[in-house]
Amino acid sequence: MKKFIALLILCLTSNLRAQLPSHEQQIEKIYKNALTAGKAYDWLDHLSNKIGGRLSGSLNAERAVSWGKTELESLDLDRVYLQNVMVPKWVRGTFEYASIISGPGMSMNVPICALGGSISTPSSGLRAGVIEVKTFEELEALGEEKVSGKFVFFNRPMPAEYINTFEAYSKTSNQRTQGAAIAAKLGAVGVIVRSLNLRLDDFPHTGSMRYGDLPNNKRIPAAAISTNGAQLLSSMLSLNKDLKFYLKLDCKNFPDVPSHNVVGEIKGSEYPDEIIVVGGHLDSWDLGDGSHDDGAGIVQAMEVFHLFEKMDYKPKRTIRVVMYMNEENGLRGGKAYAKYAEQNNENHIFALESDAGGFSPRGFSFEATNSQFKQIESWKKYFTPYMADRFELGGSGADIGPLRNDQIVLSGLRPDSQRYFEYHHTANDTFDAINKRELELGAAAMASLIYLVDQYGFNLEFK
Amino acid sequence: MKKFIALLILCLTSNLRAQLPSHEQQIEKIYKNALTAGKAYDWLDHLSNKIGGRLSGSLNAERAVSWGKTELESLDLDRVYLQNVMVPKWVRGTFEYASIISGPGMSMNVPICALGGSISTPSSGLRAGVIEVKTFEELEALGEEKVSGKFVFFNRPMPAEYINTFEAYSKTSNQRTQGAAIAAKLGAVGVIVRSLNLRLDDFPHTGSMRYGDLPNNKRIPAAAISTNGAQLLSSMLSLNKDLKFYLKLDCKNFPDVPSHNVVGEIKGSEYPDEIIVVGGHLDSWDLGDGSHDDGAGIVQAMEVFHLFEKMDYKPKRTIRVVMYMNEENGLRGGKAYAKYAEQNNENHIFALESDAGGFSPRGFSFEATNSQFKQIESWKKYFTPYMADRFELGGSGADIGPLRNDQIVLSGLRPDSQRYFEYHHTANDTFDAINKRELELGAAAMASLIYLVDQYGFNLEFK
Repeated sequence: MKKFIALLILCLTSNLRAQLPSHEQQIEKIYKNALTAGKAYDWLDHLSNKIGGRLSGSLNAERAVSWGKTELESLDLDRVYLQNVMVPKWVRGTFEYASIISGPGMSMNVPICALGGSISTPSSGLRAGVIEVKTFEELEALGEEKVSGKFVFFNRPMPAEYINTFEAYSKTSNQRTQGAAIAAKLGAVGVIVRSLNLRLDDFPHTGSMRYGDLPNNKRIPAAAISTNGAQLLSSMLSLNKDLKFYLKLDCKNFPDVPSHNVVGEIKGSEYPDEIIVVGGHLDSWDLGDGSHDDGAGIVQAMEVFHLFEKMDYKPKRTIRVVMYMNEENGLRGGKAYAKYAEQNNENHIFALESDAGGFSPRGFSFEATNSQFKQIESWKKYFTPYMADRFELGGSGADIGPLRNDQIVLSGLRPDSQRYFEYHHTANDTFDAINKRELELGAAAMASLIYLVDQYGFNLEFK
Repeated sequence: MKKFIALLILCLTSNLRAQLPSHEQQIEKIYKNALTAGKAYDWLDHLSNKIGGRLSGSLNAERAVSWGKTELESLDLDRVYLQNVMVPKWVRGTFEYASIISGPGMSMNVPICALGGSISTPSSGLRAGVIEVKTFEELEALGEEKVSGKFVFFNRPMPAEYINTFEAYSKTSNQRTQGAAIAAKLGAVGVIVRSLNLRLDDFPHTGSMRYGDLPNNKRIPAAAISTNGAQLLSSMLSLNKDLKFYLKLDCKNFPDVPSHNVVGEIKGSEYPDEIIVVGGHLDSWDLGDGSHDDGAGIVQAMEVFHLFEKMDYKPKRTIRVVMYMNEENGLRGGKAYAKYAEQNNENHIFALESDAGGFSPRGFSFEATNSQFKQIESWKKYFTPYMADRFELGGSGADIGPLRNDQIVLSGLRPDSQRYFEYHHTANDTFDAINKRELELGAAAMASLIYLVDQYGFNLEFK
């Protein structure tokens, strides 16, 4: 009799299991819906074209917050709310301009833009000679005598030989972030930084810079010059090292202002205390409309919920979408989210960010223990048919970084990186640079990964 | 003593081997040169912007032949020559036009283009009702009575759910290739085919069509309508099934004209009789400048030789670049090349074609025996750092197809396919749609594969 009951239970269980869709079937549904009935592209159309660039502290950033909240409320979530975040407010101003003056009456405009956080020039602008360097070491070696009273022109190009363009970025971005602070200490009057762009074109690329511990009266203006402009300036300097550069910036730092992260969640049916986060950052730079950086990440994170709704998937764990504010120049949203999570004793098991552009997804990177990564690698097979199965250890996303601890797994969507730095932080990061299918495939890959984490959670000892 | 000599030989051999660069090092050189000192992008700039669209039989096609020969002669090859090929000559003419007439005085222009090979309309154009169908079965079921005297509007969209867009293409391309022949047999006066494009936009996409055994007096004109135009026509038909469509085409078929394949080769130092081919097709459609289809393939094939030259690599086997003429509307170049190869008793061991656009390479597809594919798969590891390691069986390239036999391995470069059909056979297939790095990565992947085939050849029994 016992045997009979055991057999009966076995039969019922296996029948039940047979009726549940397989992971392959669920992921197939996710992809099919994303490609045929997705909302990501239309959402991004609105965010990019009806709202546009949304720098922290701007009116547009608040419009984006309000839009994000409204759209999340239109999804079938259990809770949508705002988190208060104080953010820096830096304003580009109305006029920025630069020219190379190679002799009396001989001047040539070059495309520049202020770096985010820079002080302005005097209202009449700055006119000075130029010292070109490739590295900080080279600059230090020149010393105060040669640098004082001049513009320092940081002209180290992004190296083309890296396959992953983010590596090339990491080899050159300190010119932009620290260049002004270092040059100021040597008495420079301003810095001109070669745009972080692998292509030669006419777009200057902005991005954050920091003065560090430099007192206010020692700070100097910092501008990016387009790659073509940098090539021109460099070749003109090689002909005439005494040429002058004229720079006028009109930007300004204001006191911090209040803003918000936008958060939505579905309560888990079985493990409501295990929280899974998926997000991107809602703020962008002001030059383009931030379609790739990071409008794409925002709408892909929203799409995860829309796709679950389409397939009527009820998560076991709590899944939260977070639209972080102020990734670009402060990371205040990411820090605030982590602080609130700690205050509320929340248990985050996984956080996924998309902040590398809306391009064709190649896979994910993870910050995880070896045992966690072993478990994740067992899921690779589900992504192979969708060509998104490159799983690697190392790196995730800036906004989710503050959640880092010994337990949580962090992850970043890794799209093809070849085109990213043509659009990064510049005026052509606009909706027309987005391919609908590539965007949708990224959202589908993210939804598939979130689905699997929701199904399994993370075992502390996965073999 | 024998032992000592054996030991000495072993030492010398292993020393020699140690001095030879490893495959990893060679492939690293290939990639580095492609990304930092490549010529592919500049070559394509010339082919696209200085020559432009180059339909078989046109003056531009002959200019491309002459350019190709000159450029190959500037490389360090042992031999450059032309192969005679007779090609079809179809000319679009000066005027093509269409409109939807929904009532007296109510007409609306829609973007159309003649399909390649179509006959023209009468010089006053054609005006008739429209029958919309999705499939040939649907059309046959309607029968002559409902079709006769009308335009047949083939409106089956490319299905969005396929990850590989070439699969979506294969599900819909028969509307374009066979639609007119089938509709003509039912008495249709012309066909309007939805452009093979996954995106909704205003570009009509041309491409080849065939009348098959249809006698000349039964042939009907065939045009493609843009995807937006197709959506419009379909919704207007749903409101008014009696609307009229007006079509005017001015195209013409001429007798075949002489043209050429362009061939260059390096004689192999060890196995000169084993021939490895790498190529693309030099002809393109006439609407754009054929940058993706297939200017990219042409310059990537040329780049293989330039990269070998840069690293001073002397191949063991004979390596041949072939710029095929007339892939688009006849495949005469591919057929002629195979015929010459057979006449000359040449032993081709491998042929690689790039004809899927200049996008980020994901890997290669192969037509090979299981044992050959096993050998090829052992090389995957060399491509993993470059994210081009998706190797799969099935399909290669149209131009190299005629070389198919039991011995040869055929292969096609497989770039990311998401954007391809936005540019395929239409006016926006232009140089600005090419990303320099993506193009270069494709060339490097191809050079790496050719290098490995040259190093190993194919063993008949690889374990």
